Amino acid sequence: MMTQNLPHIVIVGAGFGGMETAKKLKNAPVRITLIDRQNYHLFQPLLYQIAIAGVVPSQIAYPLRAIFRRQKNLNFQMGEVTGIDLDARYVRLNGSVIAYDVLVLAVGGQTNFFGMKSVEERGFQVKDIESAVKTRNHLLDMFEQASREADAEKRRALLTFVVAGGGPTGVETAGALGELITHVMAKDYPHMDLNEVRVILLEAGGSLMGVYPEELRKATFDLLRGKNVEIMLNVKLENYNGEQITFGDGRRIRTRTLIWTAGVRAAGMLDSLGVQQAGSGRVRVDSSLRVPTHPEVFVIGDAAYLENGNGQPLPMLATVAQQQANVTAQNIQKIIKGREPEPFHYKDPGLLATVGRNAAVARIFGLSFSGFIAWLIWVVLHIYRLIGFRNRLLVLINWAWDYLFYETQVRLITKE
Amino acid sequence: MMTQNLPHIVIVGAGFGGMETAKKLKNAPVRITLIDRQNYHLFQPLLYQIAIAGVVPSQIAYPLRAIFRRQKNLNFQMGEVTGIDLDARYVRLNGSVIAYDVLVLAVGGQTNFFGMKSVEERGFQVKDIESAVKTRNHLLDMFEQASREADAEKRRALLTFVVAGGGPTGVETAGALGELITHVMAKDYPHMDLNEVRVILLEAGGSLMGVYPEELRKATFDLLRGKNVEIMLNVKLENYNGEQITFGDGRRIRTRTLIWTAGVRAAGMLDSLGVQQAGSGRVRVDSSLRVPTHPEVFVIGDAAYLENGNGQPLPMLATVAQQQANVTAQNIQKIIKGREPEPFHYKDPGLLATVGRNAAVARIFGLSFSGFIAWLIWVVLHIYRLIGFRNRLLVLINWAWDYLFYETQVRLITKE
Repeated sequence: MMTQNLPHIVIVGAGFGGMETAKKLKNAPVRITLIDRQNYHLFQPLLYQIAIAGVVPSQIAYPLRAIFRRQKNLNFQMGEVTGIDLDARYVRLNGSVIAYDVLVLAVGGQTNFFGMKSVEERGFQVKDIESAVKTRNHLLDMFEQASREADAEKRRALLTFVVAGGGPTGVETAGALGELITHVMAKDYPHMDLNEVRVILLEAGGSLMGVYPEELRKATFDLLRGKNVEIMLNVKLENYNGEQITFGDGRRIRTRTLIWTAGVRAAGMLDSLGVQQAGSGRVRVDSSLRVPTHPEVFVIGDAAYLENGNGQPLPMLATVAQQQANVTAQNIQKIIKGREPEPFHYKDPGLLATVGRNAAVARIFGLSFSGFIAWLIWVVLHIYRLIGFRNRLLVLINWAWDYLFYETQVRLITKE
Repeated sequence: MMTQNLPHIVIVGAGFGGMETAKKLKNAPVRITLIDRQNYHLFQPLLYQIAIAGVVPSQIAYPLRAIFRRQKNLNFQMGEVTGIDLDARYVRLNGSVIAYDVLVLAVGGQTNFFGMKSVEERGFQVKDIESAVKTRNHLLDMFEQASREADAEKRRALLTFVVAGGGPTGVETAGALGELITHVMAKDYPHMDLNEVRVILLEAGGSLMGVYPEELRKATFDLLRGKNVEIMLNVKLENYNGEQITFGDGRRIRTRTLIWTAGVRAAGMLDSLGVQQAGSGRVRVDSSLRVPTHPEVFVIGDAAYLENGNGQPLPMLATVAQQQANVTAQNIQKIIKGREPEPFHYKDPGLLATVGRNAAVARIFGLSFSGFIAWLIWVVLHIYRLIGFRNRLLVLINWAWDYLFYETQVRLITKE
């Protein structure tokens, strides 16, 4: 099956885009090398649950070698790509050189701090397992420190949790954090005055969930307020020194915790390719998701810049990456046969975000839902989409337990 | 309930000894402060399972605040004790001073490298969650590196795994590692020649499981050989440079992995107390587990040195710590009432160690078992003893799955 004469497809990145492209090429007459820095695929939509001690990494990550165990035309290599030569058609990895016939760049995005060094150094992130675990350890440690802090002002700074960014990650994190405090921490720290705890969500724009329709933006706002989250709109964060946030208008918040979810850009490694990039560093691709100057190179997912019908860039969402992966797998097979690739058209499957227990907002088939029904849809969809039957089962048991007993499993502070 | 006039019991360490002492004082007229460096109790007997990617930390660790949520006379404090003044009767913690009426030191043990700096620096350990996760990441990374290593000699060094120490931890780790390779890695790395993989167990003495009766030592040896573990007895490790082990007789093994389980001593913090210590740094206690010069200070578990009837020191085992905790909780209540404390007598409940799937050795009620029956006893006992119903359920599902499908869940390489 794996002969040297077959075209060599190199896929960089095993997120939703890269993984799906590889899977869809299972029966194609190609050799595939799939490369990722990690040895696992991460179910990114639930990453915020690690940060608030709701799930553990193994519940939302699955080893790539296990996923592709039965795919004979695929070879996985773990490592960091240190260079790509588009003209010579090779990728540098672990000190070797890997030549390709077709390259798929599905390298995803990274946090954008918009040049704010102070936030990058002292803020927390929810961008990968490591940063989410670090955030979890920090949050739990703040409660431990507060439990023995006699100075009221210092204690309030320890118990003020600020989430920056009113998009899905920020909203989900803030909502889940509000619940963790009300339902779990209240039991773990019976001597603590929970009125001293604040969860604050910051948004630079005029509303939460900017891309959602008006009624859902409003619903998100109301649901979050119901979880005791304070919402500050139209605020411009200017500096964070680890103790205090300073805003553009001179206001300040004393806090030991700033979780930054307010910016995302395409992976930095794309900057050195020497190809045209749009805002946020995304690579400009043609209608078939190829680099115009190098038609054997596909760029998909968060890394790619393509506009939809009405001139807006496609959002950085798993659904976009997955649809692009499907088309790209088909187009690779067409190119191999000497045919023309098809253009990509995004089919919007709707919007869905959770705000916490019993609370989510959704827009599906043109209908808006919020509250319990939307939350049920969210639970079913997310558990179904989680890779691996066992993981689904474990997450389901965990969540059922949490739901029934207002409990979370994993409040462990582990050293890094 | 929690009044200042009640005697203040300070317990340092929330392992089996400290946790049980605290629990048994639930209804006593005392104030308890329980101190631990971690915010969780760790089920140490399954720690080796983290190292071989069999379970994740949250399955064998449980938050202390959750365990003691309903115990109104107890206050938990997370932190590192930085000093103890036995004459002035206080403990230093997190920059504060905590005065006690009765002190219970249940601080456990730590790895003993017997002064071998090279092993301490380059060897791996299975002593806490962090070191076990580090070991897991390293083991998995060795396979990743080997999968792309063309040089046969380097590849063999990557695929040679050496475990030092023929006690329970070493035997369990080596056996589980042998199985991981035969049953799991063989599927994950179909292109790899598994004949290049070696698992070697080193023991300085003449037999494995030295404290066990002869027939079980023999059974352990045979069971391990059946798991493809090479066993080297009577070997003295002299140096490890990260690439190669050198023995006293000049022999060498090229390996990138040395897991050191060959020595344990009492926690180093005991050395600065200024009390009499026996070998391995354990504090010499009277028959009621008290420091002779300071009868208000109890030392229990691995930290305590006490001989059994036939002049042998009590082993560093969870069962010893738990029995000592029960007696200590009773004795504390006696002392408070002005009565004399009782002496401690160890009741040996038997021995039990697993060598892998379907394989364990046990000695219970004077009978020796080995093989499948012993393994079943081990599984039932360990799952039952795991704290928390949910944890038991999750571990059970995991293990049932692994057993049926020769699979392990958590082969994630996470950065530290």
